[in-house]
Amino acid sequence: MPDVFVDVGMSLDGFIAGRNRSPQNPMGGVAPSIHEWMIKVHAWRDRQSLEGGDRNQDNEIASETFERAGAYIMGRRMFDEGALAWPDPPPFQKPVFVLTNHPREPWERQGGTTFYFVTDGIERALKRAQEAAGARDVHISGGGHTIQQFLNAGLVDEVQIHLAPVLLGDGLRLLEKLDGMPSHWSTDRVIPSDDVTHLRYRLA
Amino acid sequence: MPDVFVDVGMSLDGFIAGRNRSPQNPMGGVAPSIHEWMIKVHAWRDRQSLEGGDRNQDNEIASETFERAGAYIMGRRMFDEGALAWPDPPPFQKPVFVLTNHPREPWERQGGTTFYFVTDGIERALKRAQEAAGARDVHISGGGHTIQQFLNAGLVDEVQIHLAPVLLGDGLRLLEKLDGMPSHWSTDRVIPSDDVTHLRYRLA
Repeated sequence: MPDVFVDVGMSLDGFIAGRNRSPQNPMGGVAPSIHEWMIKVHAWRDRQSLEGGDRNQDNEIASETFERAGAYIMGRRMFDEGALAWPDPPPFQKPVFVLTNHPREPWERQGGTTFYFVTDGIERALKRAQEAAGARDVHISGGGHTIQQFLNAGLVDEVQIHLAPVLLGDGLRLLEKLDGMPSHWSTDRVIPSDDVTHLRYRLA
Repeated sequence: MPDVFVDVGMSLDGFIAGRNRSPQNPMGGVAPSIHEWMIKVHAWRDRQSLEGGDRNQDNEIASETFERAGAYIMGRRMFDEGALAWPDPPPFQKPVFVLTNHPREPWERQGGTTFYFVTDGIERALKRAQEAAGARDVHISGGGHTIQQFLNAGLVDEVQIHLAPVLLGDGLRLLEKLDGMPSHWSTDRVIPSDDVTHLRYRLA
């Protein structure tokens, strides 16, 4: 059965976004340093309609993460902030289910990305995303609060963390406000590179 | 020149000790799960005068960490709590410099461990530890506050983090209250095992 997975960049001190976040700067002032590895690689640049990029192991991991996803789920805030930042065509190239309280017609973009707005909760959003994804996996994109909701509901099979050797000191933490802790995950794969360590965990 | 290094077990959510810490239980109720890998391996058990233990890659890392240390530095609280818990002979087998405000004569134990009590600050403690260590490295053992003091003073060359796939949810964080953040470390070595990922970083 396809997986429900989370894929995030995180600083060594546990932040997925920096301080001073704003709609114009959703990652916060210092957080782009978490993603330095990603913006260098071909697979990411290609999804942003940018030329070039490294074709190294980091690239393979970015590529694999795009390829496995048959649908995405994100929170309303991430959508609102991202809608200002994503290029057209957007990088998803698959259906994206946005959790919101405000009903809205689907918004079809170029290149295979259509945003669907789901007002009846995370389980319903997941069901729709799984139907859309078919044999592929569902990527819980974010933001932090949305990921925490899915983790707390026990709906996540796998968490991939791209751990950057960076200390942010402040910002938005991913791994907090989780119920049922302490808990133990199972290490599935660890791939280091100069810029980042790709950690993959399976959840019981 | 020999290194000054930190070596800690940390949960995926950034804690080096759990909640509900007490002198009788210095790691807190749930934190032993961080160290599960360690208490299984021969090198650690041998230092505790215990039989057996795995002789795998985790063991090599534990052994290497003991062998490279020519002297240790720790805070008064770690000493006070540890003194109740360490066996005799204690696991260090080298001079240990304890940061304290209370002058006290050196305390010589069996097996090469002597505790020296240093009342004139971390830089003086480091100088004495480096002299005692000779060609070997100085291990800043802890606790968290002591490690933070050395990091903030720019006195640490290397940080090794044994990252356990465990969420504690609460407790004592290592990587906070650090000045000069954001900062960027350099990934030196990553060695995964089933139980833990051994991360080693060089500091600029």
